[in-house]
Order: sequence, then structure tokens, then C-alpha cells
Amino acid sequence: MKINENYKNLSESYLFSTIAKKVAVYTQQHPEQEIIRLGIGDVTLPLAAPVVDALHAAVEEMGKKETFHGYGPEQGYGFLKQALMRYYARRGVVLAENEIFVGDGAKSDIGNILDLFDVDNTVLVPDPVYPVYVDTNVMAGRRIVYAAATRENGFLPMPQADVQADLIYLCSPNNPTGAAYSRDQLQAWVDYANERGAVLLFDAAYESFITDGDVPHSIYEVNGAETCAIEFCSFSKTAGFTGTRCSYTVVPQALVRGSLHLNAMWLRRQTTKYNGVPYIVQRAAAAVFTEEGQKATRAAIDYYRANAAVIAAALDEAGIWYCGGKNSPYIWMQCPGGMKSWDFFDHLLEHAGVVGTPGAGFGAQGEGYFRLTGFGDAEKTRLAAQKLKEAVRVL
Amino acid sequence: MKINENYKNLSESYLFSTIAKKVAVYTQQHPEQEIIRLGIGDVTLPLAAPVVDALHAAVEEMGKKETFHGYGPEQGYGFLKQALMRYYARRGVVLAENEIFVGDGAKSDIGNILDLFDVDNTVLVPDPVYPVYVDTNVMAGRRIVYAAATRENGFLPMPQADVQADLIYLCSPNNPTGAAYSRDQLQAWVDYANERGAVLLFDAAYESFITDGDVPHSIYEVNGAETCAIEFCSFSKTAGFTGTRCSYTVVPQALVRGSLHLNAMWLRRQTTKYNGVPYIVQRAAAAVFTEEGQKATRAAIDYYRANAAVIAAALDEAGIWYCGGKNSPYIWMQCPGGMKSWDFFDHLLEHAGVVGTPGAGFGAQGEGYFRLTGFGDAEKTRLAAQKLKEAVRVL
Ligand SMILES: Cc1ncc(COP(=O)(O)O)c(C=O)c1O
Ligand SMILES: Cc1ncc(COP(=O)(O)O)c(C=O)c1O
Repeated sequence: MKINENYKNLSESYLFSTIAKKVAVYTQQHPEQEIIRLGIGDVTLPLAAPVVDALHAAVEEMGKKETFHGYGPEQGYGFLKQALMRYYARRGVVLAENEIFVGDGAKSDIGNILDLFDVDNTVLVPDPVYPVYVDTNVMAGRRIVYAAATRENGFLPMPQADVQADLIYLCSPNNPTGAAYSRDQLQAWVDYANERGAVLLFDAAYESFITDGDVPHSIYEVNGAETCAIEFCSFSKTAGFTGTRCSYTVVPQALVRGSLHLNAMWLRRQTTKYNGVPYIVQRAAAAVFTEEGQKATRAAIDYYRANAAVIAAALDEAGIWYCGGKNSPYIWMQCPGGMKSWDFFDHLLEHAGVVGTPGAGFGAQGEGYFRLTGFGDAEKTRLAAQKLKEAVRVL
Repeated sequence: MKINENYKNLSESYLFSTIAKKVAVYTQQHPEQEIIRLGIGDVTLPLAAPVVDALHAAVEEMGKKETFHGYGPEQGYGFLKQALMRYYARRGVVLAENEIFVGDGAKSDIGNILDLFDVDNTVLVPDPVYPVYVDTNVMAGRRIVYAAATRENGFLPMPQADVQADLIYLCSPNNPTGAAYSRDQLQAWVDYANERGAVLLFDAAYESFITDGDVPHSIYEVNGAETCAIEFCSFSKTAGFTGTRCSYTVVPQALVRGSLHLNAMWLRRQTTKYNGVPYIVQRAAAAVFTEEGQKATRAAIDYYRANAAVIAAALDEAGIWYCGGKNSPYIWMQCPGGMKSWDFFDHLLEHAGVVGTPGAGFGAQGEGYFRLTGFGDAEKTRLAAQKLKEAVRVL
């Protein structure tokens, strides 16, 4: 019996557990001090009323023999895929129904897609990065090379002629940096991938936060992406589904490597190792695309984005460099006075009772940076932004 | 870019599509003939009232800011794991909370668990078998050896001293054969695995159909299983969750191979590639374990089992050999007169309008056998059993 020894190469992340410990110690020493969490990567507003209504209606169906639903198609019901096709079509992206796969989360699909690729591939991952891209490949034993995201490139690394990569992760708008690629920048990545036969894994989990007309919501808005890109998207941040679980992955028919169609491979993977998203959850997801559903979910996104704008305004006033916030719930700030990420974490907790996320936790290039998010309560975010400004001033 | 070429070695299963085509042709030729489906592997009764109530209540929570649930623990909420611990404890199996992992389906977990094992392992799979065990290993490129389940061994293959296997699949009560291992038989498998350092993957998806006191519901009722076995179970058949999606997998703390703890590896796998089961679904699953929940879900299982008994009685009267039915919704019958599986399929459709599943579709040893299930409607099952008897008589 041989175990998968690659698991030994995983480095434990102590990021969020260390944060929790530090906050616990501080709270014990300062029981009177209110803690405001601006580090959170989870939504806080409830499900929208049209989504709640759709859930109740679907639950009723499940309780009656005539309208009960057992196993559904592993890749999702037609009613939801049709709604997604119309959503893509708004931006001129025409997808076939069998190019869309409904799943239980972008995290699952981003991890599981790797089943389709040989271990003997080189993976290009931005740094800093959503840790899942790295860990899933370490588990499989693939070579990883990093694309440095820095203040100089606006935290948007571009293709390098001398780097050979077979699988390329792009996340735009980005977690943790909030930076978002323009159409021209994505075109450069698509051209690069097509020239070299690489596959882009495009994480669009935050597309609904985009305001800038020049930032594509989907990689398929870019010419030639259908022969090189797989797209992952999620209802988690778009509609507050982090605890309700629904996502969608697009694998174009035109994406072929060797003699294999990746669409057919992913269909085979999902029909073999997956049994679909709950019927009631797919009904809830479809309700997001009704007129009322769009209105209600857009209002929540506006709320989070307004929070990000409040934080951004405080940083502007304090003269601190940051990116993100505009097309993203995330703000990525440079720690003032050349401080290191964890030193600034301690300082902010000590002087403002505000908790953020040290950039160093997302990769080596994150050192000296700090992530703040707009997912909190509006009133508390205003208070925290004020305190943040003051805490920076005393430095 | 190297694709996973193992996908080329997958054989397409045309089992259910061939059945559908044959039925369509027959229906066109005999529009007046009612078709009764006894081949179905999916539940047909609605969710139980206590489950429906729990879903509605949880949906209400999700619609209010104060009670909203975002990301939960990837491995499941404590309230559900506690309920599962009590369920296991009824049979004397004491589990720690961190040995239980809540998932979205036994199919997912059975597929994904393979991430923990090297490709260079030999896998022992019974034949006939639930096709997922085979296909998931073909995809990864592992060697597969088969344990023949035959009429001679009651479709319950036992360990063979001369067969070297690292991963061993057991499914009891079995799909497709309905056969269930006794305590002594499972003890032999556990001893064999412990002696050789193999890992048993024990699929208990049908445990709730067990009536026989000598048939363990859990592999952990058997001495020594905690050092060699992983158990998969599901609410799909137990509580009609095929379209609602919830399962649980047990990985004991004592299960260690090399220097690696499989429990820690699976935790790492799930926290990296999975984001948990919907909160509302976990509340629904917990409701199965309330007094009313148990009463209602047991009633559904009794209904299906009564259907299986009706089919079994017809076969007894016709003098046809079969196994299953007693501890299982499945009945595995020998095709009369030495007929082959597909020939009997055609005969039964032609002479009775009854649709079953040809045993040959589950593996080479399934040739000459036929699967019938108790998941249909009671009235129709009675009618089908009558017609089955008549169709066999004309042979
Ligand atoms: C960049 C990125 N991709 C994917 C995910 C996972 O989303 P889901 O909730 O759909 O699993 C997240 C969640 O935080 C994320 O930040
Ligand atoms: C033997 C066996 N294991 C597992 C499963 C999968 O169950 P789930 O619905 O939990 O994915 C099935 C479903 O038919 C099955 O027959």
C-alpha cells in the first residue's frame, strides 16, 4: 500500500489560526475594546428574498410525490444552465448548454479539474494567490512556478516569453489583491496560451463586482479563449451562497489537447465522481437571474462595494498606496512606513481594534501588504476606516 | 501540456442509454402497453415531513442577517456530526467527532478518497460491481484485479491468500446483487487487510435496509476495522436524499499508513478542495435522526423493502434463483433457462412490459443475471411481479 507522499510537501497554513489566536489574546487583555473584522472573506448579508422564496417553493416540491426530484443530471438542470446561457449572452458570450457544468463550489471545481491533466505539467501560479491553486497542485506533485504580482505591475503579472508553463491560473478580479485585468491584458494571456498550447484556468468568482467597462467579466469575451481557457464562477460572492453552495464551470467544446476533448473529459469526471447540486439549491440559483433576483443581489454587491469605497477613501486621505476596491470587495494596501505584514497586523489590532489579513499569508510577494475587505457591516466599516486612518497617523 | 491519457482507457457504459433506447422503440411499437420500471436505482417517495419542516426552518434562518450562515466547516457542522455519533453509538460504535466527514454524496467521497493513495497500488474490486469503483481507478491509472462474485459464493467473494491487493472495495448490502456480508465474513476481510496493510473502502450506502441481526451496519462493528477501513455512507437511500445530497465518510484516527494519518490527509483534502454541504441540507440531514425523522424515514424503507419482498415472492413461486431483497432494495435473479442478461431484458419487456437492468452491465460475472429493485410504486410493483411470473412461465 503506497500512500500519496506528496501530502508531506504541503505546508500548513497558520494564517487564519494565527489571526484567531492573536485576536483572542488581545481581547483577553482589552475586554472593553470592540473588535472590528475587516479581514473576512465571507459574505454577511442574508439570502435575497426571491432566493428564499424559490427555496421554500422547491422544498415544497420535494415534499410531494408528484413533484419530488431524485437524482438529477450530474452536470446541472437545464433550467439553470439556460439562465446562465442568457447571463453570458448579455455580454455577447454564446455558450452551448453542454459547455456549462453546475457544481457545488468554485473551490471543488478548481481542485477537481486537475484530474484531467497529467502530473507531469508545469503550473504557473501568481504570487500572492488564493492558496487553493498551490495546494491542489502540491498534492498531485506538479511543478509550480510563480508569476510575481508586485506594485510595479499593478499586481497583474503578464506573460513572460522565457517561462514555460502548461497550466496557468488567472484570478480576475483577484483575491487577495482586488486587481482586475483589462481586456488587452487578458488578450495577451489568451494569445500566449494558444501559441504554446497551455490551458488557462480562469477564476471569475468575483466577476459581479466589476464596474470598469474595460474589465471582462468572462474570459470568453476575449478572442480565442474558447481554445485555451476553462472558466470557474460561483454564486458564493455574487448572491451570498457561501453557505448554500452553487457554482458553474465552463469547458468549451473547442478546447482540445492531444486527441482529447476537455469538455468530454470533464463530463466523464463529473458523471463518475459527482452526483450533482441539490435540486432546491439549483432552483435558488436560478432565482438569482429573475428580475427581482438581479435587483436584490446587485443591491448586496453595491453594499459591499460601498464598504470597500469607504476603506479606499480612508487610505486615500492617509496617502497610502493600495489597489482593488473598485472592481472587487478586496483592498490590498501597502503597509505604511515599510512595515511587514504581521507587524502592521499587530499595530492595527493594538491601535484600532481592527483585524485585517496579513499579505504575507498569501505568498512571498504579499510581504509588506495587507488585505481589507468590504464584506462587513456598513456602520462598522465606517468606524473601522476612521480608526485605520488614525492608527496609520501615529506611525 | 500533457493530458491525463488514462481517460482513453475508460470504457463507455451504454447500459442505461441502451435500456432507454430499447424502451423507446418498444413504446413506439406498442403505444397501448403500460411500461413498469423495476430497474430504477433512485428513490421515488418524497422527503419526509420532519425533513421538509427542517428545510423550511433553515431557509428562514438563511433569509435573516442575524441567523444567516456563510461558509461552514468543510467537514460538516457539529450538530450533524453529533447526531451521527449517536447513530453509530446505538450499535456500539464509538466515533470521535473529527473522524466523521459530512459530504455531498457517497459517489463524490468514494471518488475523491483516491487522492490519498499513490497511483502505484493494486485495487481489488468485486465483479459485478457499482461501476464507480472501476472507473475512478481507471482514470487514475491504477491496476485493477477482480474478485468474482458468483452464485457459488452467494455473490459474496471472500479474501484469497494468493491475491495481492492494496485497496479493497466492499459494498454490503451490495449494489447490484443485494447480497450482504455476515459479521464473520467481514471479520475475515478485516483480518486480511490488517495482516497485509491493505485499506478497505467499505460502502455502506444501503445499511438502513438491513434486517438480519448478523449483518453489520458498519464495518466498525467488526474488530480491528479502525486500523484498516474507511466507511462511506449516504442519506440518499436512507432518507430519500438522492436529489438533496448529503453523505458521511468515516476515517478513523487509528488508520495510519507509512508515517501518514489518513484522517489528517482527508481533512487536508477536503479543506483544500471542498467547501462543505449547504447549511440547509445539513439541518435536513440532522432531522432524519429525530424521533419523528426516524419514524418517517423507516416507513419509507419498509415500503421499498415490502416491494422487494413482493418481487422475491414471485420469483420463489416461479422457482427462480435470486439473492438480495432481504437486507436490500435490490434483487439479483438468475435469468431463467440459461438466458443471457440482454435476452432476458428483451423477453421481459416484450412479454410483460417490465423494465429491469441486465446484470452484464455491472461486470463480466453479471452475465446471465438481472437486477430488479424495490424503489418503485407499490401497486405497480405488485402488477409487475405478477407479469414477471407469467413472462417466465412462457419460456
Ligand atoms: C478566488 C476564489 N476562488 C474561488 C473561491 C471559492 O468559492 P466557492 O465558495 O464557490 O467554493 C474563493 C472563495 O473565497 C475565492 O476567493
Ligand atoms: C453502492 C452505491 N454507493 C454509492 C452510491 C452513491 O450515492 P450518493 O447518492 O450518496 O452519491 C450509490 C448510488 O446509487 C450506490 O449504489
